[in-house]
Amino acid sequence: MSRKLSPESETGAVLREQLAYYRERAAEYDQWWLRQGRYDRGPEQKAQWFTEASEVRAALVAFRPGGRVLELACGTGIWTEQLLPFADELTAIDGSREMLAINAGRLRSPSVRYIEADLFRWRPAAEGRFDTIFFGFWLSHVPPERFAAFWNLVASCLAPRGRIFFVDSRYQETSTAVNHVLPERSATVLQRRLNDGREYRLYKIFYDRDELTQRLADLGWSFEITETRNYFLYGAGCRISHETGNG
Amino acid sequence: MSRKLSPESETGAVLREQLAYYRERAAEYDQWWLRQGRYDRGPEQKAQWFTEASEVRAALVAFRPGGRVLELACGTGIWTEQLLPFADELTAIDGSREMLAINAGRLRSPSVRYIEADLFRWRPAAEGRFDTIFFGFWLSHVPPERFAAFWNLVASCLAPRGRIFFVDSRYQETSTAVNHVLPERSATVLQRRLNDGREYRLYKIFYDRDELTQRLADLGWSFEITETRNYFLYGAGCRISHETGNG
Repeated sequence: MSRKLSPESETGAVLREQLAYYRERAAEYDQWWLRQGRYDRGPEQKAQWFTEASEVRAALVAFRPGGRVLELACGTGIWTEQLLPFADELTAIDGSREMLAINAGRLRSPSVRYIEADLFRWRPAAEGRFDTIFFGFWLSHVPPERFAAFWNLVASCLAPRGRIFFVDSRYQETSTAVNHVLPERSATVLQRRLNDGREYRLYKIFYDRDELTQRLADLGWSFEITETRNYFLYGAGCRISHETGNG
Repeated sequence: MSRKLSPESETGAVLREQLAYYRERAAEYDQWWLRQGRYDRGPEQKAQWFTEASEVRAALVAFRPGGRVLELACGTGIWTEQLLPFADELTAIDGSREMLAINAGRLRSPSVRYIEADLFRWRPAAEGRFDTIFFGFWLSHVPPERFAAFWNLVASCLAPRGRIFFVDSRYQETSTAVNHVLPERSATVLQRRLNDGREYRLYKIFYDRDELTQRLADLGWSFEITETRNYFLYGAGCRISHETGNG
């Protein structure tokens, strides 16, 4: 007799699969960012992708990360490297030790502090509060039912007058691998494959800029969210209400 | 009795010191690019540096490297990583095996071919010719007396209708480490230190955009050279005369 999982158990099951996927994918993750292999959609697409990536990097520089910086879901270090020059202290967290190892190998910087932790369980303790919190291509992997709790976690890590910068994916067919099916925009769980064909379920939410701005405002945040032409959406913001709801 | 070196032996002596410096500096090289340690001139300077770096990256994307790509003096891979997505094949050469090891560790890409070779001795043989040749922060380290020979080498590596992109340093005091003295602009040999204080002589020529454009035109090249506000100068060009002089 098969039993239907409760919604919360189902969320947990997908999140475990999501983390397993990123652990296995660590070594091939940068192929996505660098448009290699299955992510290669030809020179026109690459040029557009990297033009937009430069826009996001320039926006991050203009935002001026600074002070004690926290990066959530730091991955292979694509963004950790951008943050490093501006941070007085840099703490980088990821659920995958494989990602952390690649990140550390890439940056070779003794001044980055790495923490291996599942972001759906981690709570800041001894780490203190941070002046800048950054997450790249992470918000889209937070289940809708954990959205408010995630932002409460962010609030609980943020120093007074602290600021947030995030970047994430727009809904764009040519962003993903050629053998990935991009589901309806409203879908929240999709299938992803490793290079070897193994399949995993994960959360991937494509946010609409205006709707996301409003949802964040409802939770007490002020965000300016910008879309690049095809691929990315990035936001810079801060807390406007200092009450933290119950996660 | 001390003997004065002939000019050519003197060039060779400085070039040996230059290569020794970069081999020793490999592990600390990225501190320069990321404005860490001795290169940290404060947040304003960093923001300006990275804004200009984004401009150069965007210009490289707009230039569209492609086909068989050759990177001379690839170093730790700051630019190799930018070239990789656009290259059908990517060959990266450096005189320092320490740099090559860091580069390979950073890119973790089986599709990059690395060659350890002194660029003042290397001649392309089995490598064939390249559609795109790139060099970042290398031209400034070519001795003036080897300038024409260097460009002959570039010509000899270039496929018909091949194109070149380079980026280099403008003469700017805040670009170098706080304990480096920036000599007169017209100087060609200067002293550089490692983090541990050891000193080396090396060539560092700061080119004027118009003068460099003209000198390259005299050698049969057409270059469009652009300066960013403070720090960088980059050029995109091709061969206009197909005669190669004698190095």
